[in-house]
Amino acid sequence: MSRLPFLPKEDKFFVLFKSEVQNMVDVALEFNNMVQGTKDIVRSVAELTEMEHHGDTITHDIIAMLHTTFVTPFDREDIAALAQRMDDVVDLIHEATETMLTYEIENTTQASKDLADILIAQTRELEKAMPILEQPRKLKSVLPHCVEINRLENIADKVCRTALGELFKNPDDVVNIMKWREIYGYLETATDRCEDVANVLEGIALKHG
Amino acid sequence: MSRLPFLPKEDKFFVLFKSEVQNMVDVALEFNNMVQGTKDIVRSVAELTEMEHHGDTITHDIIAMLHTTFVTPFDREDIAALAQRMDDVVDLIHEATETMLTYEIENTTQASKDLADILIAQTRELEKAMPILEQPRKLKSVLPHCVEINRLENIADKVCRTALGELFKNPDDVVNIMKWREIYGYLETATDRCEDVANVLEGIALKHG
Amino acid sequence: MSRLPFLPKEDKFFVLFKSEVQNMVDVALEFNNMVQGTKDIVRSVAELTEMEHHGDTITHDIIAMLHTTFVTPFDREDIAALAQRMDDVVDLIHEATETMLTYEIENTTQASKDLADILIAQTRELEKAMPILEQPRKLKSVLPHCVEINRLENIADKVCRTALGELFKNPDDVVNIMKWREIYGYLETATDRCEDVANVLEGIALKHG
Repeated sequence: MSRLPFLPKEDKFFVLFKSEVQNMVDVALEFNNMVQGTKDIVRSVAELTEMEHHGDTITHDIIAMLHTTFVTPFDREDIAALAQRMDDVVDLIHEATETMLTYEIENTTQASKDLADILIAQTRELEKAMPILEQPRKLKSVLPHCVEINRLENIADKVCRTALGELFKNPDDVVNIMKWREIYGYLETATDRCEDVANVLEGIALKHG
Repeated sequence: MSRLPFLPKEDKFFVLFKSEVQNMVDVALEFNNMVQGTKDIVRSVAELTEMEHHGDTITHDIIAMLHTTFVTPFDREDIAALAQRMDDVVDLIHEATETMLTYEIENTTQASKDLADILIAQTRELEKAMPILEQPRKLKSVLPHCVEINRLENIADKVCRTALGELFKNPDDVVNIMKWREIYGYLETATDRCEDVANVLEGIALKHG
Repeated sequence: MSRLPFLPKEDKFFVLFKSEVQNMVDVALEFNNMVQGTKDIVRSVAELTEMEHHGDTITHDIIAMLHTTFVTPFDREDIAALAQRMDDVVDLIHEATETMLTYEIENTTQASKDLADILIAQTRELEKAMPILEQPRKLKSVLPHCVEINRLENIADKVCRTALGELFKNPDDVVNIMKWREIYGYLETATDRCEDVANVLEGIALKHG
């Protein structure tokens, strides 16, 4: 917090939220680079690991500031939930990529590219929604972003289910099924956590809007 | 909420909770039809998908009403937890059935029938417990239902563990192990979420009873 | 609670927390006996099952006392989170051992021994941190223990990832991969839950220290 010494505490929350959402977008973009094969996987994972540490620091700063601040812009549990669910998204995408490295995955799949697209779209919606928190009169305008994030999560569900169905149609390659099922699990849960962030934003809009 | 325009808000919470618990019972019964083989799986999944949407709507209405209501019959976090954990039960049973469809499961197992029975019994207990919330003087009478739900969850644990042990005794059919382990996982977690609902009810009884 | 009739309620919370953390340490030590092969697995699981019930009782007592106590030493949600996350650690280690029994695991692995060491070290740190809660002026001295628990969780992550990578290098033994992946999953999540306990302690120190 020493990095933002002259701002009132309320503004510092907003600054930190915007850093965290920016980091989420960067993680989704870097993950996309990786599954598109435009970048060496080892280098991608190294960069994503750094971004994941960066996200941890921001989340930790938000929670620490929450514990030491008497008046907060929103309910404390909403601030904590926003920070932690955004952190989960970053952790899960990072975990998916670490797992791809551990399992020596050489070729990505169409489903992993589709999930990267969905995660970019979801995090971009959150990037648009987050600054609205600073404008109390416009709070309700977060709602269409929340609806869209929800819609994207439903698509991610279907992408994963279809991909798993396909995998199981080739039961000779059980090890491949096991590897991808784990990776898809992380990515699908990342889209769930984006929806959780959207649900918290919706709650804030309903309570204060 | 426009559907219940003339009720005081407190009563609307109770009406919604009873709809949600009714939907849970219906989902457990429909799941039982499916694993008993008395109904076409594709039709069952279609009906369960509709019930799952119905449950989503009820949960969403409860949370939205919570955000816009100043005085609530119980602690806000208990109301939210009740709605969300009941929604989880429905989601997990639905997920189990979608997975059975995706993996083209043709024959159900004795364990899946036992788990269907347990889920019917647990949701029936919740159906009996829920109306007690409206009678402040009788709140403590939810407790025996909670004990029974707990007991059923322990049985579900054992059913799953035994079924998994059996599956692994036939290591030739790895794909079958993988499929059923995932399905049992959803069903066992559904019985855990029933127990979570019971724990919230117990907490309400202890605080207010 | 009838077991602690003459203590003020605040002190009873501390007594119960210390019992729960002691039970966690005992569980980690017993799990270590088991993976070190110094004890018959069936007997170990039986003892761990008893310890798990003991932990359930303590957790239940804490939550019940929370619901019936007006003034609590810390925020109610922090007390509930401490009790429940410690209970999760015990449940997960117990689940790992039940799974080893169900899957008829005969030889333990180096990774499971390393994870037992990490769980002993993490629970020992929590055992040192917990009594500090009773000394409001020294609350900040829980922080180094939290940092250490965090560090240990990162090591557990790496141990699991490396072990999984090794397992997948021998794709002939798919059933073995499946069994150990599930067991490592429980143990790694147990180290995560230790970190969750540490995070709650850190929050208490920041709020009240």
